[in-house]
Amino acid sequence: MKNQKYAKRMKRMESKEMKEILELADVPGLISFAGGLPAPELFPIEALKASATEVLDSVGRKALQYNDPVGYGPLREWIAKRMETVGASVEAKDILITSGSQQGLDFAGKVFLDEGDVVLCESPSYLGAINALGAYECDFIEVPTDDDGMIIEELEKIAASNDKIKLVYVIPDFQNPTGKTWSDKRRKEFMEVIEKYGLAVLEDCPYGELRYGGESKKSLKSMDKSDRVIYLGTFSKILSPGIRIGWVCAGEEAMDMFVKVKQRSDVHTNSVSQMEVSNFLANNDIDEHISKIKELYRKRRNVMLETIDANFPEGIQTTRPDGGLFLWVVLPEKMDAKEMLKKAVENNVGYVPGGAFFPNGDNKNTMRLSFSNMEEEKIVEGIKILAEVIKKEI
Amino acid sequence: MKNQKYAKRMKRMESKEMKEILELADVPGLISFAGGLPAPELFPIEALKASATEVLDSVGRKALQYNDPVGYGPLREWIAKRMETVGASVEAKDILITSGSQQGLDFAGKVFLDEGDVVLCESPSYLGAINALGAYECDFIEVPTDDDGMIIEELEKIAASNDKIKLVYVIPDFQNPTGKTWSDKRRKEFMEVIEKYGLAVLEDCPYGELRYGGESKKSLKSMDKSDRVIYLGTFSKILSPGIRIGWVCAGEEAMDMFVKVKQRSDVHTNSVSQMEVSNFLANNDIDEHISKIKELYRKRRNVMLETIDANFPEGIQTTRPDGGLFLWVVLPEKMDAKEMLKKAVENNVGYVPGGAFFPNGDNKNTMRLSFSNMEEEKIVEGIKILAEVIKKEI
Repeated sequence: MKNQKYAKRMKRMESKEMKEILELADVPGLISFAGGLPAPELFPIEALKASATEVLDSVGRKALQYNDPVGYGPLREWIAKRMETVGASVEAKDILITSGSQQGLDFAGKVFLDEGDVVLCESPSYLGAINALGAYECDFIEVPTDDDGMIIEELEKIAASNDKIKLVYVIPDFQNPTGKTWSDKRRKEFMEVIEKYGLAVLEDCPYGELRYGGESKKSLKSMDKSDRVIYLGTFSKILSPGIRIGWVCAGEEAMDMFVKVKQRSDVHTNSVSQMEVSNFLANNDIDEHISKIKELYRKRRNVMLETIDANFPEGIQTTRPDGGLFLWVVLPEKMDAKEMLKKAVENNVGYVPGGAFFPNGDNKNTMRLSFSNMEEEKIVEGIKILAEVIKKEI
Repeated sequence: MKNQKYAKRMKRMESKEMKEILELADVPGLISFAGGLPAPELFPIEALKASATEVLDSVGRKALQYNDPVGYGPLREWIAKRMETVGASVEAKDILITSGSQQGLDFAGKVFLDEGDVVLCESPSYLGAINALGAYECDFIEVPTDDDGMIIEELEKIAASNDKIKLVYVIPDFQNPTGKTWSDKRRKEFMEVIEKYGLAVLEDCPYGELRYGGESKKSLKSMDKSDRVIYLGTFSKILSPGIRIGWVCAGEEAMDMFVKVKQRSDVHTNSVSQMEVSNFLANNDIDEHISKIKELYRKRRNVMLETIDANFPEGIQTTRPDGGLFLWVVLPEKMDAKEMLKKAVENNVGYVPGGAFFPNGDNKNTMRLSFSNMEEEKIVEGIKILAEVIKKEI
């Protein structure tokens, strides 16, 4: 018997950072800007209850039985049509239903990555993706970014000099953690480099529907001429994260791989919930629902930015996102946001230290603030407290 | 850029056998003994509808929000208590809720297996497990089995001579595909070998609650002195497979690994469904429900065996399971059940050719028949047709 009981990949999971973050967001009474939680007061409970009853009444035996790994047909059709809003012309056959888009990230790792393969990502990037892909023992190269997205010259330099790149992971809309959105020009240039070097792209778009200002951008998927882009979407931010329903949109060859992985991983996503969501979408105006979410989050974003402007000391940079759930704060270089977090929590305020979003470390002087899940008065109160904590540490 | 676009592991998934099987079970009008589908007429739709309404009314906002990766507390408590019926003394902290027990199989691969590691399994074994574990690029060694389970001398011979063994995967109760159940004596001897060689065991028990005759056996988990056994359970066969709710029961160290993997794979299992199942269990008599399932399946098993006895030609061996969903047929050695399947389907009957259940191939003269999902008259009709097909081929 080997000495090593577990797989090598488990060593990559020794960091408890993500768990600590979720636990932090869960302390009762804490003013938490940590987790990317939707506002629960907007969950359409009555409509979902009606959908649950209708599905069980009309197709209960089918819903409760084993179902197709690819997902529920009418839901896949709805999603394919919805993809038009990001400029993509796709069909139901191009859609796989997953258990949240986190599962899409995990599957992308399983489909593409061998040990030692390289994933390019924005610097910083989403912690959940770093964790999911990192479980497949890849290495990350962080591509420098500015306010318009990945810096193309830097991307090209890396692409030209590294033959182990398997995937480029990006969040072009209201990025997690920075809240930044790529410009149209940058998207076009990015796709040219992708084509030139024959790379595969994982485009993660959980927040795309939540725009509070500025103009909508076309997805990378919509510019994809040769099935290089795998697009991930989700109902977590526009309906409910608890139901765990997301999707992968991909071309035929990659889709075949994802479906094989889905079948071997958990057979299919909860079919009762898939049918309930499909029923909900048929009987309710999702755009009206999303506009309510946007109205609430826009106010919360504005209040957070205004309170930051009025209270944070000088020398601190903050992004001003056009949508999504997050903004990003860069403190003076000598500061450590993880150390400072203890003091913030003592004063009843939580956030996510930014270092965790850099797969190769450093950048301790950053933090992510979520504005989606706190009432306006709490945001004002929490940001004022945070400003005081920062002033003491600066 | 590498020539190889996808991960090496995808080569292991090229077989379409499982997909073909599920598709076969899905042909309308076919008398199918293929898929291990529960009888949908027994799904407790009204009670589940009541639970859905109650959960959304009472804790809807909590249910629809992001939740804990380990699963819903009261459901984990119920499961921990239920584990007493298989002789295991465990607590809620030892239970992780998964998206069906297929996900427990996938996670076991992720937690334990590096490329080239060895998994021991019964010969034959469950195709879904072979596929899930095989995705982690392990090799399988099939341990010869008889009617009482793995043959201990054979197991010990392999354990003593191979230092790459990471996991021993077994289904001691109403095995898939054979329907066989391990004797108490064999379980005890098996655990002695496991202890002696310091192996880890994956005990898969999806059918344990469905006993139609004979005496209940204690689980391997109940004999586990040093946290060597990872136990997988599921609600798929006693409530509904569509809701995708199963569990992993493991000791502290392994549980920590499984939870890390869960969080990185899909954050948590659908929390609305977890709470609905918990509500259902609190407000309904699950044992009464299971006794209805057992009554129906017992009849179907009996009818299938009687019709086989009366119609199959000589020289064919059939197991006589005390529970579960399946029985196993061994045809004369020269026959090929996969070839014969085409003729069977032409005659409107489906089954699963047994070769797929042997990870290292051969044994083409075998087949698995499921009796759970066909009415008695259909079973009689289908088995008579199958007998004719066999007679022509023999």
